[in-house]
Amino acid sequence: MLNNNFIKELNKTFPRENVLAEIEERYVYSKDASNNPYIKNSLADAVVFVESIEEVQSVVKIANKYEIPIICRGAGTNTVGACVPTNGGIILNFSKMNKILEINTQNMTAKVQPGVIIGDLQKAVEEVNLFYPPDPSNLKVSTIGGSIAQNSAGARCFKYGATKDYIIDMLVVTADGKLIRTGSNTIKNAVGYNLGSIFIGSEGTLGIVVEATIKLLPKPQCTQVIMSYFDLTQDAINVVDKIIEKKLFPSTIDFMDNNSIKTVERFYPTGLICDKDCALIIEIDGAKDTINTQREDICKILRKNNATNIQYSTNKQEAENIWKARRSSMAACTKLKPNVTTDDIIVPRSNLSKLIKGVQDICKKHSLTTCLVGHVGDGSIHPQIPIDYSDEKEYREYKIAKSEIYQLAINLGGTISGEHGIGLEKKAYISRVVDGGALDYMRQIKKIFDPKNILNPYKIF
Amino acid sequence: MLNNNFIKELNKTFPRENVLAEIEERYVYSKDASNNPYIKNSLADAVVFVESIEEVQSVVKIANKYEIPIICRGAGTNTVGACVPTNGGIILNFSKMNKILEINTQNMTAKVQPGVIIGDLQKAVEEVNLFYPPDPSNLKVSTIGGSIAQNSAGARCFKYGATKDYIIDMLVVTADGKLIRTGSNTIKNAVGYNLGSIFIGSEGTLGIVVEATIKLLPKPQCTQVIMSYFDLTQDAINVVDKIIEKKLFPSTIDFMDNNSIKTVERFYPTGLICDKDCALIIEIDGAKDTINTQREDICKILRKNNATNIQYSTNKQEAENIWKARRSSMAACTKLKPNVTTDDIIVPRSNLSKLIKGVQDICKKHSLTTCLVGHVGDGSIHPQIPIDYSDEKEYREYKIAKSEIYQLAINLGGTISGEHGIGLEKKAYISRVVDGGALDYMRQIKKIFDPKNILNPYKIF
Repeated sequence: MLNNNFIKELNKTFPRENVLAEIEERYVYSKDASNNPYIKNSLADAVVFVESIEEVQSVVKIANKYEIPIICRGAGTNTVGACVPTNGGIILNFSKMNKILEINTQNMTAKVQPGVIIGDLQKAVEEVNLFYPPDPSNLKVSTIGGSIAQNSAGARCFKYGATKDYIIDMLVVTADGKLIRTGSNTIKNAVGYNLGSIFIGSEGTLGIVVEATIKLLPKPQCTQVIMSYFDLTQDAINVVDKIIEKKLFPSTIDFMDNNSIKTVERFYPTGLICDKDCALIIEIDGAKDTINTQREDICKILRKNNATNIQYSTNKQEAENIWKARRSSMAACTKLKPNVTTDDIIVPRSNLSKLIKGVQDICKKHSLTTCLVGHVGDGSIHPQIPIDYSDEKEYREYKIAKSEIYQLAINLGGTISGEHGIGLEKKAYISRVVDGGALDYMRQIKKIFDPKNILNPYKIF
Repeated sequence: MLNNNFIKELNKTFPRENVLAEIEERYVYSKDASNNPYIKNSLADAVVFVESIEEVQSVVKIANKYEIPIICRGAGTNTVGACVPTNGGIILNFSKMNKILEINTQNMTAKVQPGVIIGDLQKAVEEVNLFYPPDPSNLKVSTIGGSIAQNSAGARCFKYGATKDYIIDMLVVTADGKLIRTGSNTIKNAVGYNLGSIFIGSEGTLGIVVEATIKLLPKPQCTQVIMSYFDLTQDAINVVDKIIEKKLFPSTIDFMDNNSIKTVERFYPTGLICDKDCALIIEIDGAKDTINTQREDICKILRKNNATNIQYSTNKQEAENIWKARRSSMAACTKLKPNVTTDDIIVPRSNLSKLIKGVQDICKKHSLTTCLVGHVGDGSIHPQIPIDYSDEKEYREYKIAKSEIYQLAINLGGTISGEHGIGLEKKAYISRVVDGGALDYMRQIKKIFDPKNILNPYKIF
């Protein structure tokens, strides 16, 4: 009855095609890429496609009136259940707010709506010789809004940082439907508290980002990708150390273990070499006249550390092909079992080899397959574990393994998420890495911004 | 009486030499570089030199008990009255907590106490081929703690960002004396709200940073500084635009107007050319084999835009000399009149020439001298206005000019501080740039972290 009333009100406010309330429709939009049936999740009551800031405010006002949750959704690629409902509510779908409002070449900034796909923004700014570095693996579908919510990073974080390093200003609709501005249209800003950064990575629990101004960089003149293989993982890790020791600064140092290589090659063959322990994908960028020097310096380190089958891209297509293999890793894993979990742990780089070995050992002990990929330049690893959720015994083992993997990362001085967030999947573990005092302040911040607990409730903690 | 009691307690807790309570001592530490007699300021009741985290906690507990303000102080170089008492209290002096606790070359991180001088950290990390970019002009005296409090930036922000982009973890003593950790020892972190970034730039009003972990970069192989002069300021601005248009990416593009050049040359002669309208100081860095190309590309742009007397450094000493001239600008200005005010405004780069011209016009109108310097690559300008505060008429004119300068920056899409902060000097103006909704959230955040209003009270708003 109450539900009927608020849906009636939504239907009165929005064009018919922008409100979905059929069960099949609600079902589709109540899932994300985590898809873990053991995590308490629920069906949304309605899905609303918003087309303007004012429409977002209207939905928030209705949600307020009926005290109904609002869950923002970009492309739904989240892997931790950060954009699924826990007790009904309205899915705010941003796929129609997908306009790049401005690219200003003189200021090197872009103004975008939250539904803009990251890959589309990158393409558009590169056309005018600018550069937006953050590159989560699913950048061809995932949105700026989602990457702000999760503070996404990606392979190039090693050199270029994460989403938070590029958002200079935002318009945010608050839980009571007001519109606030978090920053300024300038590269630097030292006026008052840095409100913007508290929204970035807050997983939609504090406010609804409806517009973002993004700092851009000059596009690097050249880019080249070097792929190489190793018979011993330790040799690959040594390469990472040596590159840093030599003060080379590639834009990415990515990693695939033997299982990832084999799985990708099996389902998306591109000629990967399957009998090697692991591969490194190193991207370099910069001025034309440094590319050859950079590549030669890196290749020297690679050869000295027993890398084999070193190859490098000579054009954009070849670079794309190498990245395609790395980025297909999750899709390939989904073919091994009905489901796949993609985790995200990070340690100080000096403990990387202990982390990789440790995760492989834990998975072996629990009879789980793991395909390890990661941004090893950052000390960041994504264990992808194919799983059949309907096999309760396997899930039990997986759950123990997961807990052990987190503890391993923590014991090695790291943390339980570098770029995917906490959502529902990891909230049971957050107190292992955030102390009670800090958690308490986070909870109080949540109360300030969302006193009625209607913005993506029950996520993070 | 009350005062006596808390000072007795301080004396009981700390060695005698670490508590200053004589009026002369309190006077010295109750000033910063703003030094504006018209801004309501007061004398501290005591100055405490802390030597450990536990000692900071002890002071906070005493301050809590007597509800006495705590004002943290690094080197006191702040220009907006952010570290002076407004109604007594304890100055927490960090000059004895000045240890670099760790430089980890493999992780490219440093762990420091807040009293470490920025220049000392830079030197130490450069010795192991690492690089800490933020470089406020007073980096030879100013501290990491102060730069965290104000989110300082400096010339290299154009390429490398501000302090907030380098602090990955902090230990913070909260207003009730607890110790919390804000981040993790890793390059990326997507666990919970980004508490760290709310402390950075909060001017000591939310918590006391007692340790920071800093992300470092590989040290650029080479650095070179190019100085050039212009008969027309517009030509210099055109150079900035052209450099960006050509996607060159120098580490700094700094500016001195004719008044700054003349004033520096008068008091700290280094052979600057005094009959030119302005000068640009452009620093480039990168791999050895790109430096010549970069310099030639930039010199081409300079010549095409009527730059004269182009010179560039051929070694570190020559580079230092050029920067010394730029960095002496404030010290030189202090010799023109009993006082000097250093302001800090920023606009989107496309409005830079309007800002420079506008500030010069406003100062002329109010019969004020202005020495303009700035990080023009960022759209950032520091108008330095020599002033005799005892001349009430002059101060009146200055106050009107200041207000007009802020409004100009705002009208040009900018804001009233890029890197110095708000403190006492600018709190009357903050509502011109931060909307009521955002300000209200900031006030609520202050209440969460400091319910008794003892941490640097009455600053920012």
